[in-house]
Amino acid sequence: MLHIKEIAAKLGLSESDIELYGDYKAKVKLDVYKRVENNPDSKLILMTAITPTPAGEGKSTTTVGLGQALNRLGKKCTVALREPSLGPCFGIKGGAAGGGYSQVVPMEDINLHFTGDIHAIGTAHNLLAAALDNHLKQGNELGIDPTQITWKRVVDMNDRALRNIVIGLGGKAHGVPRQDGFMITVASEIMAILCLASDLMDLKERMGNIVIGYTYEGRPVRAKELQVHGAMAALMKDAIKPNLVQTLENTPAFIHGGPFANIAHGCNSIMATKLAMKLSDYVITEAGFGADLGAEKFFNIKCRFAGLKPDCAVIVATARALKMHGGVPKNNLTEENLEALAKGIENLDKHIENVQKFKVPVVVAINRFPTDTEAELEFIREHCEKLGVPVALSEVWAKGGEGGIELAETVLKVLETTPAEFEPLYDVNLPIKEKIETIAKEIYGADGVIFTKNCEKQIEKLTEHGFDKMPICMAKTQNSISDDPTLLGRPRNFKITVREIYVSAGAGFLVALTGDVMTMPGLPKRPAAVDIDVDAEGRITGLF
Amino acid sequence: MLHIKEIAAKLGLSESDIELYGDYKAKVKLDVYKRVENNPDSKLILMTAITPTPAGEGKSTTTVGLGQALNRLGKKCTVALREPSLGPCFGIKGGAAGGGYSQVVPMEDINLHFTGDIHAIGTAHNLLAAALDNHLKQGNELGIDPTQITWKRVVDMNDRALRNIVIGLGGKAHGVPRQDGFMITVASEIMAILCLASDLMDLKERMGNIVIGYTYEGRPVRAKELQVHGAMAALMKDAIKPNLVQTLENTPAFIHGGPFANIAHGCNSIMATKLAMKLSDYVITEAGFGADLGAEKFFNIKCRFAGLKPDCAVIVATARALKMHGGVPKNNLTEENLEALAKGIENLDKHIENVQKFKVPVVVAINRFPTDTEAELEFIREHCEKLGVPVALSEVWAKGGEGGIELAETVLKVLETTPAEFEPLYDVNLPIKEKIETIAKEIYGADGVIFTKNCEKQIEKLTEHGFDKMPICMAKTQNSISDDPTLLGRPRNFKITVREIYVSAGAGFLVALTGDVMTMPGLPKRPAAVDIDVDAEGRITGLF
Repeated sequence: MLHIKEIAAKLGLSESDIELYGDYKAKVKLDVYKRVENNPDSKLILMTAITPTPAGEGKSTTTVGLGQALNRLGKKCTVALREPSLGPCFGIKGGAAGGGYSQVVPMEDINLHFTGDIHAIGTAHNLLAAALDNHLKQGNELGIDPTQITWKRVVDMNDRALRNIVIGLGGKAHGVPRQDGFMITVASEIMAILCLASDLMDLKERMGNIVIGYTYEGRPVRAKELQVHGAMAALMKDAIKPNLVQTLENTPAFIHGGPFANIAHGCNSIMATKLAMKLSDYVITEAGFGADLGAEKFFNIKCRFAGLKPDCAVIVATARALKMHGGVPKNNLTEENLEALAKGIENLDKHIENVQKFKVPVVVAINRFPTDTEAELEFIREHCEKLGVPVALSEVWAKGGEGGIELAETVLKVLETTPAEFEPLYDVNLPIKEKIETIAKEIYGADGVIFTKNCEKQIEKLTEHGFDKMPICMAKTQNSISDDPTLLGRPRNFKITVREIYVSAGAGFLVALTGDVMTMPGLPKRPAAVDIDVDAEGRITGLF
Repeated sequence: MLHIKEIAAKLGLSESDIELYGDYKAKVKLDVYKRVENNPDSKLILMTAITPTPAGEGKSTTTVGLGQALNRLGKKCTVALREPSLGPCFGIKGGAAGGGYSQVVPMEDINLHFTGDIHAIGTAHNLLAAALDNHLKQGNELGIDPTQITWKRVVDMNDRALRNIVIGLGGKAHGVPRQDGFMITVASEIMAILCLASDLMDLKERMGNIVIGYTYEGRPVRAKELQVHGAMAALMKDAIKPNLVQTLENTPAFIHGGPFANIAHGCNSIMATKLAMKLSDYVITEAGFGADLGAEKFFNIKCRFAGLKPDCAVIVATARALKMHGGVPKNNLTEENLEALAKGIENLDKHIENVQKFKVPVVVAINRFPTDTEAELEFIREHCEKLGVPVALSEVWAKGGEGGIELAETVLKVLETTPAEFEPLYDVNLPIKEKIETIAKEIYGADGVIFTKNCEKQIEKLTEHGFDKMPICMAKTQNSISDDPTLLGRPRNFKITVREIYVSAGAGFLVALTGDVMTMPGLPKRPAAVDIDVDAEGRITGLF
């Protein structure tokens, strides 16, 4: 690892532009962006994926590896990633800093408290919740209906026992009893806001606009009515500064913001992406889950809000996942199965088509696993070539940047030869239902959308309150392009069901819930935490 | 403010000994203590106080001011303080970084997230809670009785609605329903442990020893049985490193750990105090609330565990508070009232006697307020002189170190002329009741102790489980030397009632609860948060 000052220097930043957090982490000060605002923008590359297996297909790893490869080719490249949540580190998933020879470091710090952004979000979120229940207890001047409060509390932990709780028990001195619940911190609307805000004042304004519930008369109540959004912004004064770290090969990496990829948009902060684009010639950024969720929301929400024009999208595919889509049970994915591969590859086809609908050129990256056979890899390659889609093998997990040279060269060629003409998929001024139907039909390939009765009512109310002119943030299973997690491959002849829709008025989007979306994960029987330990010198083991 | 590297240099620490958190905060690396372990120890001065008014009598301010004054006199002095909790910043109390010209800085950062220690404690605490409820849900192999779980959850917020809650609702997939509650994070036993631990391995061991509840058979269940104490220690790997900042006059200040002064011992970490003592000639440290609580626990718990031998104790007194003890209502404390002062000063007398029981020389610091009259100040001074107790006026709030010169000279004279022969008040091997009775009679001046029936049973059980050979951490109102907050001055002819006693087996003490001890504060009708704001450059206003 180089001292983070040296990484900053690679980006043209001096020691006074950054705030050190130890020797290997820094935050970039708020005034830097203004200074570089007139620099030309870099090329922007989105890293997305096919519909993943539960283990994920290696988007972060490929993002880091591609960045390292571009640097090896002499290109000035920065990666922009999401901050990992603490909860999953102790649950099933483990850390989220890439893997093998394509990781961001210091991995342990990034996976644990990092620079405290997520703790700041949790505190700001819970300050608003405490102010809300205090308001009820102190006389409820605003007339907030305790049964219509939408602002829950958060904790950065997988703690299922907090999903459904009753608070305020114990008598008059201890608050007003009501049903409530906790979400994991990264599901907080404040995380989404952090990632969409343009600066600290915009962040404050957006936090003030959060709808926390409704009055007895049905009027939406904004956070600013409780008058603590200034204090919330004060809590976020450092969290808003993008974090700078490095990859194992000293490629600069911004890691800033990590909203849930289902109820929120699943991309790192606009501030980090834009800053990286002013300081480099190539920026690679990722979006959560498969392209049906992550890329769709990256394009329709993040790029729309930020005015970004992505130049290229890389879709990460693995032979393992494509075989799963071809019907192979999860335990047999390490065996060669060309027939299943041929059947499952239509999942990749659909994601390619989807990205192309945004008029962004596509590259397929085959993320190689040790158990993949040459025949399988060759099959995927030929399939893409037949489609006329550039394809490259990526071995960045095992070989670092060296394993990403083919991919880097492929991407560079596309950037040179194929201009993007990015545009979002729909007009935000369309009626809510029409926007959802557009996504469902165009991206998921659904025949239509069923809105539950409840949802119909909500859409009416939201429209009445003027919340209809916003993009849609779809909350959907990541395990299928449809809303049914068991439908693998490229689902056909289905409708999706939207059971609830609510406004994230601070973030500026409407969340449409399909299926069962869980905003608070649980721990497995044997949590990953059991294997994590630390020695006398502070060296951590068991965190991956 | 000097760059924190320069403050470190004053202590003989190089840049490689510290980890920067921006330009004005740093953590001292774990290996530094070993290097300086054989340095001679500094003089150790405890800052304590009379029974305070709700606003506090200025212990932190006087600690900082005395440190600055000693530095002005050419002495190498460091102060060691507690970390403020976020909750009270947004409630009534405001920040806790000293005041006026005797503050630690950067005040806003210290009062908000600082270096993330309290967030780390909260996360480690809640990981254990999540693992516990996960254990119940996954089959409860240990046979933990859900009605006898003592490990609550924590949040760093004043949030009364979380005091009494029911969790685990919603059906089988969402956990096992049971009654639970949240405390404010600084009330976590992990905070007490951090402050008593000697190093990271000791911290891990102690966290593993925490009693989280009892089985159906009544056996105490330790945290280590859930096997997540390694992960908890990993979360604490940075929190255990003492934080270095500075005062407004560039005196080095360690701010590390801030356990509740009622259910815990209310002193900064042993690691910070010991490190400061190896790097300076004079160290001033404070203990929460009045001397009946803070100093008693500093001596009987912190000094006993750490083998510290304090050389002097300063008792901060104010004319305001002494008039309150003489019967003046809180609204009239700004008016001269020598009669009330003469009556109330017995509160100071009792605290002086108490500290002297530990064979530590006493100095009285009169913390001057603008409304104090010369006659009042003169009265207190003469009273102390009659008692033969050195006394000095302190004007450090208004004048910084310059205002503490008289106090500094008085303290230096005592250190030169009056050797301390510190010893704790009781033998830890005495039976539980006897230890409590000793504190109640000797320190509070009570005639005796009433143990409730419930408490008698608990004492029996704790003794049976071998938890009896530990010091006692008294939880008592800070508003009276007795357990009745309305008894001002020097209460006489009373008994105290202990209603509950439980073990903090990781911290290594028994907590004896008297009166109503609140581990989760609430917000007032108009929370301080309403006045806090931040501007576009990140400058915070309204935080005091």
